[in-house]
Amino acid sequence: MSSPLTPDEVQRTEDTFGPLTQSLRTLIDATIRSQADDADVRRAHALIEEATALLSTRLDPEPFGVRTTTDGRTLTWGNVLIGMRNAIAPPLRVQRDENGDAAAELTLGAPYEGPPGLVHGGVCALLLDHVLSATAHRPGAPAFTGTLTVRYVAPTPLGRLRVEAWTDRHDGGKTHAKGHILDAAGAVTVQADGVFIRPKVKP
Amino acid sequence: MSSPLTPDEVQRTEDTFGPLTQSLRTLIDATIRSQADDADVRRAHALIEEATALLSTRLDPEPFGVRTTTDGRTLTWGNVLIGMRNAIAPPLRVQRDENGDAAAELTLGAPYEGPPGLVHGGVCALLLDHVLSATAHRPGAPAFTGTLTVRYVAPTPLGRLRVEAWTDRHDGGKTHAKGHILDAAGAVTVQADGVFIRPKVKP
Repeated sequence: MSSPLTPDEVQRTEDTFGPLTQSLRTLIDATIRSQADDADVRRAHALIEEATALLSTRLDPEPFGVRTTTDGRTLTWGNVLIGMRNAIAPPLRVQRDENGDAAAELTLGAPYEGPPGLVHGGVCALLLDHVLSATAHRPGAPAFTGTLTVRYVAPTPLGRLRVEAWTDRHDGGKTHAKGHILDAAGAVTVQADGVFIRPKVKP
Repeated sequence: MSSPLTPDEVQRTEDTFGPLTQSLRTLIDATIRSQADDADVRRAHALIEEATALLSTRLDPEPFGVRTTTDGRTLTWGNVLIGMRNAIAPPLRVQRDENGDAAAELTLGAPYEGPPGLVHGGVCALLLDHVLSATAHRPGAPAFTGTLTVRYVAPTPLGRLRVEAWTDRHDGGKTHAKGHILDAAGAVTVQADGVFIRPKVKP
C-alpha cells in the first residue's frame, strides 16, 4: 500500500471511507449521549463488532502515515486532527491565505468535552499546535513543533469555533507563530505562540 | 439524567457501555488501517448506521458533563481523555500518589498519529495538560489550566508511553506543575510546565 495511489483509487477510497468515517463520528457522539435501554446497547455493540470484523479482513499492520498519489498529492488520511479516515478528527480543515496565515472553522460537540459544556483545555492546545504549525509548512517540508505556549483567557464552550494563526517572524529554519481560538461570539478564549522547525532537506 | 446515579445504575452502564466503547476504539483503528474491498466497507458502513440508530432512540440533548452518584462519586464518562463512554479517550488512567504526583501509562496506536509513526505533537500537549492539571486537582475542586508550555525534545513514537507530573510550587490558589512524556525506552520526548488555577469555592 506504500506505492502511490492513482486518482481513481483516491476517489474510490474517499467515496467509501469518507461517509463511513463521518457516520462513525456520529456513533462516537451517540455512545456518549445515548439513553437507550440495555438490550439496544447490547445489539449496537454486536453490530459494531460485526463492522470491525468486516473492515479487519485485511488490515495494514502500519499506521496510515503519509502516502502520495501518482498526481503528486500527499494523503494524511490517518491524521488525528485532519484525517479523512480518522473518526477522532473533527476533521479540521485548515485554510492558508497568500501570506501563509492559517485559519480553521469547526464545530466541536460532546466528544471533545473536558469541564462540563467546555472544550478540554488540552484539545484547545491540540488545535492551536496544528493551526500554528500550518503557518510554517512548506510543500513537502512539514514543520515540527519546537515549543508551544498556550494561555487560557476564558473557558471555550463546545460549539462553533474559529482558530487563527499567523507568522510573527522567521529566524533561520524557525518560524515563530502566534494564534488564538475564538468562540462562536468572536471572543478570544485561548492564545498561543509557538516555534516551529523545518528539518533541513538533504540536497 | 442529572439526578445522582445509584451504584446499581453505575454498574449496569459500565457493563454495557464499557465494552461497547472499547469495541468502538478498535473500529476507529480498523477504519484507518483497513484494506477491505469496497463491498465490505459499504456493509460495515450500513452496520455502523444501524448501531447509531439503536443508540439514538433516546439521546441526552446535552454533553455528558460531570454527574454524581448516590454514594458520592463523580462520573466523567464523556471526557475526551478519560471518559469510559468516549471512544476518543485512550482512555487515560491517571494515578496520584500521596504527594499529589500524577502519572499515567498508555498505549497510543494509529488513531493518534501526526507525522508518520509518531504521536501528533498536539496530542502530547493534550496528555500533558491533563496529567499536569491532576497535580492541582482536589476532591470536588477541579483545576483549570492557566498557561501551559510544551517543549518537544524528541519525536514521540506511537506505542507505549508514560506521562509523569509533579508540583513545582504552590502560590495562593495556583499550582505550578512540571511534567514530561517518556517513550517505551524511558527517554524523555516532551517536557511541559503549567500553571493551574482552582476556582475559589463559595462558602
